[in-house]
Amino acid sequence: MSSNFFKDISKVKYEGADSTNPMAFHHYNPDEVVMGKRMEDHLRFSIAYWHSFAWPGGDPFGGQTFQRPWFGDTMELAKLKADVAFEMFDILGAPYFCFHDVDVRPEGDNFSENTRNLAEITDYFAEKMQSQGTKLLWGTANLFSNRRYMAGAATNPDPEVFAFAAATVKSCMDATLKLGGENYVLWGGREGYETLLNTDLKKEQDQMGRFLNMVVDYKHKIGFKGQILVEPKPQEPTKHQYDYDAATCFSFLQKYGLENEVKLNLEQGHAILAGHSFEHEIATAIALGVFGSIDMNRNDYQSGWDTDQFPNNVPEVALVYYYILKNGGFDQGGTNFDARLRRQSLDPQDLVAAHIGGMDICARGLKAAAAMLDDGGLEDALKERYAGWDSAFGKELLNSSLDEVAAKVESDNINPEPRSGRQEILENYVNRFV
Amino acid sequence: MSSNFFKDISKVKYEGADSTNPMAFHHYNPDEVVMGKRMEDHLRFSIAYWHSFAWPGGDPFGGQTFQRPWFGDTMELAKLKADVAFEMFDILGAPYFCFHDVDVRPEGDNFSENTRNLAEITDYFAEKMQSQGTKLLWGTANLFSNRRYMAGAATNPDPEVFAFAAATVKSCMDATLKLGGENYVLWGGREGYETLLNTDLKKEQDQMGRFLNMVVDYKHKIGFKGQILVEPKPQEPTKHQYDYDAATCFSFLQKYGLENEVKLNLEQGHAILAGHSFEHEIATAIALGVFGSIDMNRNDYQSGWDTDQFPNNVPEVALVYYYILKNGGFDQGGTNFDARLRRQSLDPQDLVAAHIGGMDICARGLKAAAAMLDDGGLEDALKERYAGWDSAFGKELLNSSLDEVAAKVESDNINPEPRSGRQEILENYVNRFV
Amino acid sequence: MSSNFFKDISKVKYEGADSTNPMAFHHYNPDEVVMGKRMEDHLRFSIAYWHSFAWPGGDPFGGQTFQRPWFGDTMELAKLKADVAFEMFDILGAPYFCFHDVDVRPEGDNFSENTRNLAEITDYFAEKMQSQGTKLLWGTANLFSNRRYMAGAATNPDPEVFAFAAATVKSCMDATLKLGGENYVLWGGREGYETLLNTDLKKEQDQMGRFLNMVVDYKHKIGFKGQILVEPKPQEPTKHQYDYDAATCFSFLQKYGLENEVKLNLEQGHAILAGHSFEHEIATAIALGVFGSIDMNRNDYQSGWDTDQFPNNVPEVALVYYYILKNGGFDQGGTNFDARLRRQSLDPQDLVAAHIGGMDICARGLKAAAAMLDDGGLEDALKERYAGWDSAFGKELLNSSLDEVAAKVESDNINPEPRSGRQEILENYVNRFV
Amino acid sequence: MSSNFFKDISKVKYEGADSTNPMAFHHYNPDEVVMGKRMEDHLRFSIAYWHSFAWPGGDPFGGQTFQRPWFGDTMELAKLKADVAFEMFDILGAPYFCFHDVDVRPEGDNFSENTRNLAEITDYFAEKMQSQGTKLLWGTANLFSNRRYMAGAATNPDPEVFAFAAATVKSCMDATLKLGGENYVLWGGREGYETLLNTDLKKEQDQMGRFLNMVVDYKHKIGFKGQILVEPKPQEPTKHQYDYDAATCFSFLQKYGLENEVKLNLEQGHAILAGHSFEHEIATAIALGVFGSIDMNRNDYQSGWDTDQFPNNVPEVALVYYYILKNGGFDQGGTNFDARLRRQSLDPQDLVAAHIGGMDICARGLKAAAAMLDDGGLEDALKERYAGWDSAFGKELLNSSLDEVAAKVESDNINPEPRSGRQEILENYVNRFV
Repeated sequence: MSSNFFKDISKVKYEGADSTNPMAFHHYNPDEVVMGKRMEDHLRFSIAYWHSFAWPGGDPFGGQTFQRPWFGDTMELAKLKADVAFEMFDILGAPYFCFHDVDVRPEGDNFSENTRNLAEITDYFAEKMQSQGTKLLWGTANLFSNRRYMAGAATNPDPEVFAFAAATVKSCMDATLKLGGENYVLWGGREGYETLLNTDLKKEQDQMGRFLNMVVDYKHKIGFKGQILVEPKPQEPTKHQYDYDAATCFSFLQKYGLENEVKLNLEQGHAILAGHSFEHEIATAIALGVFGSIDMNRNDYQSGWDTDQFPNNVPEVALVYYYILKNGGFDQGGTNFDARLRRQSLDPQDLVAAHIGGMDICARGLKAAAAMLDDGGLEDALKERYAGWDSAFGKELLNSSLDEVAAKVESDNINPEPRSGRQEILENYVNRFV
Repeated sequence: MSSNFFKDISKVKYEGADSTNPMAFHHYNPDEVVMGKRMEDHLRFSIAYWHSFAWPGGDPFGGQTFQRPWFGDTMELAKLKADVAFEMFDILGAPYFCFHDVDVRPEGDNFSENTRNLAEITDYFAEKMQSQGTKLLWGTANLFSNRRYMAGAATNPDPEVFAFAAATVKSCMDATLKLGGENYVLWGGREGYETLLNTDLKKEQDQMGRFLNMVVDYKHKIGFKGQILVEPKPQEPTKHQYDYDAATCFSFLQKYGLENEVKLNLEQGHAILAGHSFEHEIATAIALGVFGSIDMNRNDYQSGWDTDQFPNNVPEVALVYYYILKNGGFDQGGTNFDARLRRQSLDPQDLVAAHIGGMDICARGLKAAAAMLDDGGLEDALKERYAGWDSAFGKELLNSSLDEVAAKVESDNINPEPRSGRQEILENYVNRFV
Repeated sequence: MSSNFFKDISKVKYEGADSTNPMAFHHYNPDEVVMGKRMEDHLRFSIAYWHSFAWPGGDPFGGQTFQRPWFGDTMELAKLKADVAFEMFDILGAPYFCFHDVDVRPEGDNFSENTRNLAEITDYFAEKMQSQGTKLLWGTANLFSNRRYMAGAATNPDPEVFAFAAATVKSCMDATLKLGGENYVLWGGREGYETLLNTDLKKEQDQMGRFLNMVVDYKHKIGFKGQILVEPKPQEPTKHQYDYDAATCFSFLQKYGLENEVKLNLEQGHAILAGHSFEHEIATAIALGVFGSIDMNRNDYQSGWDTDQFPNNVPEVALVYYYILKNGGFDQGGTNFDARLRRQSLDPQDLVAAHIGGMDICARGLKAAAAMLDDGGLEDALKERYAGWDSAFGKELLNSSLDEVAAKVESDNINPEPRSGRQEILENYVNRFV
Repeated sequence: MSSNFFKDISKVKYEGADSTNPMAFHHYNPDEVVMGKRMEDHLRFSIAYWHSFAWPGGDPFGGQTFQRPWFGDTMELAKLKADVAFEMFDILGAPYFCFHDVDVRPEGDNFSENTRNLAEITDYFAEKMQSQGTKLLWGTANLFSNRRYMAGAATNPDPEVFAFAAATVKSCMDATLKLGGENYVLWGGREGYETLLNTDLKKEQDQMGRFLNMVVDYKHKIGFKGQILVEPKPQEPTKHQYDYDAATCFSFLQKYGLENEVKLNLEQGHAILAGHSFEHEIATAIALGVFGSIDMNRNDYQSGWDTDQFPNNVPEVALVYYYILKNGGFDQGGTNFDARLRRQSLDPQDLVAAHIGGMDICARGLKAAAAMLDDGGLEDALKERYAGWDSAFGKELLNSSLDEVAAKVESDNINPEPRSGRQEILENYVNRFV
């Protein structure tokens, strides 16, 4: 039985680039084959429960703007929310979704009640997923909203909070396993500090390293085959978060012996807040061997906080998929929309249209990326630029000592002339495809 | 014989906080004992040759403003510059200095000529250092100004540039060893990219890892006992530099097996550009075991580029020395002023007064830091805050598995209440000392 | 009868700089005379109802952390809140307070109910103010939290919202008049846009200009003698706010004929978000003749959003009071603490201590500013620097035409030599006083 | 006779979107008619002499990378530079160019020599412009590079510098008039401050107001029909520039009675540095009636300084032209490329290709903007959103007093319901066209 929330909105169809129907896909055509694979299988879209169904539209200076019939804290409303969510997954033809525990269940008075509530809703989901064919990209525990986490979860000065957080992650991993989730994500929104004055950096990071090792051990114990992903963010809500960016996370993973067990879930908005382009974070994670999955929500370049908006700039999105495709595409990861409506966008139509727009932009980006890879111009330019390192001189150089190199530079009077970096020509090249 | 440049300026003396003489120290009193050590031995001030004697006052929109009699590219002028520099070291009573090769020697037509020029000036320095008692905090090679490095030194697509850079570092390490330098610094101003489109991130970082290993091997080969330091900076001149910040450097050092061989030279301005407070970078490096030395030049909080100004805010400087003192103070590192005058500050008096101001601010910061440590209030607050982790429960927790913890949370109904973080009270506490 | 909230906290006394009592003033001594005026009369401290008593401790990623006995939406709780607030005014000896309507009254179902509720609480305040001697620095209407304002108040596309906002301002001005308020403030938190795509800039600014003229007319009609102040902020909550900074506000005031009727309420945190130092905004408003009052809450330099923290950096605060004192000090304005606790600072002691710290910092800043003015060093340096403009040549120049000047430059071969700007020396000078 | 610099590069032709020739236009087709006007007449492209021919490729950490045969400071080389420049104007079919005095003439020892040099090169240009048909979009005086301007030109503390600057502007206005320039631009790169400590804000702005009035008076005196334009920039090289952004400039123009005489030349990169999107600055200038012309060079979103790069993002450029076209298109203004190569882009081909890329991007943006205007979807959405203000209620509201409005809200129980802002749907709409 339908919830009636989307009563005027029918299943979204691909109508092609020339359609003027705002409620149709113009570029995302799930069955279209790109580089030998269906577009749906490339992009692996996942709808985020949180921003799409649980976010009330508040901001630091204003309260709730959305008035959804399912808002409230009972099991009955949680199920109504699930009904609406799965209706939207169906309307959009989204193959995946993902969730935090607190998005989907009523808040209990203690851990036991939370766990029971989550288990009940997990069963409710399982049935819907079965009948509808929707899959779970990842599950995660919200270890940041409740006031008990205000000073951190794994990194809390109070071990009882660590314990509560660990127990909660266990129950969320159990739910994820049960629902066949392909990844499990940890975002450490409170794992950081507000002021160094009350913070023991080393102790807190050691706690976090231990916590993550416990998670990895439990994954193996229960036979969960998904990826464990951490999601970097530099700050907000805290002044400084320990999982600052891809490079910082890799430092942490190496230090605690986790670089082969844990990968990264990268988000455009978080990259921007850290002072990086999104393609930088993607390319860095790939270079370091820890690329996992993406949250495809952009930040506003003029805002100093997370705006979590749907992507809308094809040239930017194309570069992101270029690096992903060049690396072989997603493995267990996918394209999650941890993305939210503007708080003025009150109507059901806004919610669906936002996803349509984001999915279309990604589809255009994917096709442009595939065309660039197929053409090979960027790859050729790289090969030519670094060709010197394939020479005998280049190879020997890397096996020499500093004084051997100095002797050679002196004896051969090596005095290199710079060569053009050709940035503008390469940028023009990319613009041929977007 | 005197150069006459500082003709109206005599040796700077400590006159105490009440003096109104702008050319006296009001707080820096080298022989004053703080926490059992002379202030001079704590702070280990070093004057930077580059900004103080070689920088012409240009910016991206304007040319040279300083008209120093030693500007030019001959050996004779290089020696005049050295005369003036050592006169200033003497005027300020600075125990250390540091330099890049290009600051001190004329530019030659090739590597051999550069090396000969550097050797000649090294001998000239050695004599002055001997007679005057000035020591070398660190030497370094400028691998960023010459156009040959425009696309990187160690990370250049052209192996010949890597070779030229390696040879240059060798000659600078030789000079540093000869002059008894206590550290050798590498700042990778061009080790990064302008655009990912023409960049192979992995190849370039592998080159950089190999380069740094060659440096470490050569250090051991020649018996150099100083620290090898890399200096993080997030960007500028490049769009993105590989040595982004302390955490990123530690990631790199671990990946290339260098975490026990290389430490960090941290700069306030670079911390700010990376989105961190300076004390964050200091505390992070200490927590990771790679703290080496500091460049005590601040950035302007409203400018998005490196302004390299003399420090002038005591509360900020006090926190920096607090973390350093708490960690036992400098070992081989020190307080370098890689700091420059504003380009309107044309007069010799400006140059000396700027150093006086910076040194006085550091002295005030040091004394405040020592008083805080002595009082112990911050340490006590930390101990109290994390006390739970010393309990049996806390210790056992870190040795438990995720499911054991969950079982315990459930059985004991662990439901922690948050406790105040007391940030304002701690900030007030610090303000008692600054 | 006491509320019991501050049960362990007694009236805060001045104990001098050497006191280690965290619950005493160390620098703020109300009766101490500075430049011929009592410190209390200089600083004119005002406690902000909103952040101190109505803010629940939420942030974009977490809910309420404070659990105050007065939270809730009844008249009884509103009166309990007032009891606690006035107790704290008394504990701190704060001469002023200020408030938004929604901070102090329960939310009604419509305008009439809001107005009745506000009137009732206004009477309750009046009695307390009478008995306790506390005064009202300013009143204001909250035109940003309720969802009706999500697309603007005066600038809303819907004229009904404009009407509701105008009516609300009228009732708040009435309350402010009744309570003897010395200023009335308008902060346009929603007067801006989220996207230009749905915004008519000109129409919205014309609406805002008309709205502000209506406010000024009403002020005169009712005989309100206070200043009308607008409070600049560049963004947050909106992507762009029309009252961006001091210069933008002055542009707006001139355009709508209000430059002699309206002044500015400047906030440190808002200055930082706009890319300015706070002293820049103060000095700009003074130069333009529209300086009114200040909100003395700082932003964190590493956070891209409003953190509204208590000031804690004496050197920064000293410059702010320097420009204010040089301009003759506050007239009807004052030093408001629109400043909030960190959300981890749960205890009543934190709330009081935070205000103590902020007031002490301001007192130190004030005394340093007065000492600088008394010494006159900065003024002398300015006079010397611009002395050329007092010459006959300088005066004639400003009355010449471009071609007359060119003829003179050519005939006299005017070829000026630059002179030192002496920035470092002036910075050192300031550091003598802070 | 050809300079031989572009020896392998022939005149750039339009070959259409499918061409893979990197040295052809793919979108810019001068004669193609868009909204009833030739594309060339819409876009009015102008090549900037400075970045394309005079910039040596330096940055704050490195010197010259470009080695152009015309670099040097003689009249002969200045003419060679002109030969090459006009060859490139021809190769690109650019209808306009623009220049600073120092870009085109050798630097003299004094004002007279500068003026004579400029006059000689003006004659040389005039001949080329005649024969080739290239026109002058604007001339300007460089009042920022020479050390005499280090503390400002019009705002200098030394009236002699004001005089030198004024004389220089006169000679540049004369040259601009002689060459039929359609605008005269003033960019106040040094009109601002490094520190407030040595700055009299009011005096300096009064000087600047007088200076600009002298310029306007001289314009009328000599019968120059072009627009006088000021170019906003928030900072860099100075810490703060007085012409911060469009709104700040309008404040200044009003204060000094110039709002009907002076318009703005807006630059994308400067908008970004000021915290605005480029379309914000365009739309603001239009709303205030002072839109003049544009510099179409982008900044890098991750760099805190001016990167002055060629535009390469069609969605962004499309919105810019949308607001310009909606306002009737350029009048005397145009699309200048005050844009520079990356300093690694050494080859003549890079210089030409960069302009091709930028011009193509603008052409795509223009066509998308025209299509959006033609479709009318954004206009319709605006009309619908603000429709309430066309009602009798809306109109009366703006003519009411505050208490009349309050009475009406109360009597009619006005209680507005918010309506969706539809941001995502509008963003999707725009993406149909780009």
